[in-house]
Amino acid sequence: MRVAITGAAGQIGYHLAYAVARGEVFLDQRVTLVLVDLPSTINAMQGVKMEIEDGAMSAVASVEVRTTDELTDAFEGLDFIFLVGAFPRQKGMERRDLLEKNAQIFIETGQALSKANPSCQVLVVGNPCNSNCLIVSKHARHLPKEQFFAMTMLDQNRAEFQLAKKAGVGVSDITDMYIYGNHSATQFPDFYHAKVKQVQANLVLDESWLKAVFLKTVQQRGAEVIKKRGASSAASAARAASQTAALIFNKSQEPFSVAMISDGAYDSPAGLVVSMPYHFQDGRFTPVLGLKHNDHAKHCMQRSYQELIDEYEQLKTLGVL
Amino acid sequence: MRVAITGAAGQIGYHLAYAVARGEVFLDQRVTLVLVDLPSTINAMQGVKMEIEDGAMSAVASVEVRTTDELTDAFEGLDFIFLVGAFPRQKGMERRDLLEKNAQIFIETGQALSKANPSCQVLVVGNPCNSNCLIVSKHARHLPKEQFFAMTMLDQNRAEFQLAKKAGVGVSDITDMYIYGNHSATQFPDFYHAKVKQVQANLVLDESWLKAVFLKTVQQRGAEVIKKRGASSAASAARAASQTAALIFNKSQEPFSVAMISDGAYDSPAGLVVSMPYHFQDGRFTPVLGLKHNDHAKHCMQRSYQELIDEYEQLKTLGVL
Repeated sequence: MRVAITGAAGQIGYHLAYAVARGEVFLDQRVTLVLVDLPSTINAMQGVKMEIEDGAMSAVASVEVRTTDELTDAFEGLDFIFLVGAFPRQKGMERRDLLEKNAQIFIETGQALSKANPSCQVLVVGNPCNSNCLIVSKHARHLPKEQFFAMTMLDQNRAEFQLAKKAGVGVSDITDMYIYGNHSATQFPDFYHAKVKQVQANLVLDESWLKAVFLKTVQQRGAEVIKKRGASSAASAARAASQTAALIFNKSQEPFSVAMISDGAYDSPAGLVVSMPYHFQDGRFTPVLGLKHNDHAKHCMQRSYQELIDEYEQLKTLGVL
Repeated sequence: MRVAITGAAGQIGYHLAYAVARGEVFLDQRVTLVLVDLPSTINAMQGVKMEIEDGAMSAVASVEVRTTDELTDAFEGLDFIFLVGAFPRQKGMERRDLLEKNAQIFIETGQALSKANPSCQVLVVGNPCNSNCLIVSKHARHLPKEQFFAMTMLDQNRAEFQLAKKAGVGVSDITDMYIYGNHSATQFPDFYHAKVKQVQANLVLDESWLKAVFLKTVQQRGAEVIKKRGASSAASAARAASQTAALIFNKSQEPFSVAMISDGAYDSPAGLVVSMPYHFQDGRFTPVLGLKHNDHAKHCMQRSYQELIDEYEQLKTLGVL
């Protein structure tokens, strides 16, 4: 199995490459791991390669180091790719600039994916991940749309922890916690369907806390981590990425949060990359249907959908879609 | 179970805390994880704590953040401790200065371990780990000497990979690869007893390559990683530490490389912390006995033993032993 990670010289890439190498993701498969990053990071990537070797991990068949100048070679015969590398937001940068910078990266990536196996699955981690996923899916023309995923599992994990902490239970006592919309501060972690020891969270926990404190805490957790660490989430993001990839690879029948190209379920904008609960059924990942959302939930979901539509409009005016 | 990691704000600590949190080390145990580092790193440690929370990992009971000013509180009721924090070698620093700086850290650590549970096990990762381990064992007076370990598993892993690569086999085809002596450039990775698919390595691979290239590559691998990464091994060191802790915790009957206070086996200096193959037998970790070493191997082992004796003499003159 051939697996690539872009942004491999960065902190998330470093943790993620190691998770794949430990055999946590593609169980029972020996993996050729392809590390991809900017030419300026070649030494750092070679260092990561040496450290993977120094783990003596039997899941690793070999490790290749490739620069972004060699994408088509790197992607030849690929079975799975984690798209972690993205242009980070910098001080004074408008959202439009960020979208544009990243659009270039994900257009090139999409085009180079023409060399990947037709069954190659693509998990986008680099932000803004929903829009980046949309761009790459449009430009990787021969890959079916249902093979593109953007990560919202980190948000699900964060939401589960916050509920568990407040309820004074273990994280494994929290179930049915799903993220809707964009992987951004507008996301809606649906506490109405989440359960604490099989009981609806809003029957166990104070609803005003859920509506005000919980939502905001989950939505802004990424920024809070940056404030403390002086760097963005790495270990937790890599863990969520490896969990998501394992769920995809194992065709999970258990629902989990992930963003895919929407078919319009839950009034979401069809054709855009929207998070909601998905599971594997009838040969593909499909949204978990039949959940009823109240007006507050619908309002929160629409707000995040609207942000995705706005991003889409901006990308249209940039001419990248 | 209460588990502490010193140097928790550093790169190895970050990877290691996450490995413990994933449940890889103390299987089936819920762990209270105590992160310890210098007061100046309190924000970084709180960031690591947030990221562990954001992993929603059921092996974690809770995470505590403690500074080195609060060691005795931090170590209260401890069951296992990873001693990762150490004073790093800086440019222009003599080995004597390095030993002295670290001696202070490990004396204080040892004294504070009086608060730990009497069964607490101690794994030293911070370098020079053999001598640091000796110091901490002398100052943690109420803990039995057989509960102190210094890590040489990273060297074993590195050696296994180099043999596998040269022989063109998988790392799991390499067995019986053990490290003798000091975790330093004088270490002896014993290729004479190592096996490639059950055959002695020196019957499969060119002995002059083993004596010259292989030895040097393993001994100097750490420095090579630093050259490439611009930072010392983190993910691979954390992996070796979590492997070692799991082998200790599970009372491994399979031999593995680790340094313990020597009883003089294999002509090693009794009372010093020396690496060799250990396994759990008759209620404690004991050296794997009965291996015959030829003159070249004995020469290599003696060279590394001598370095340990020299470090010991220096520590004696510093008055810390």
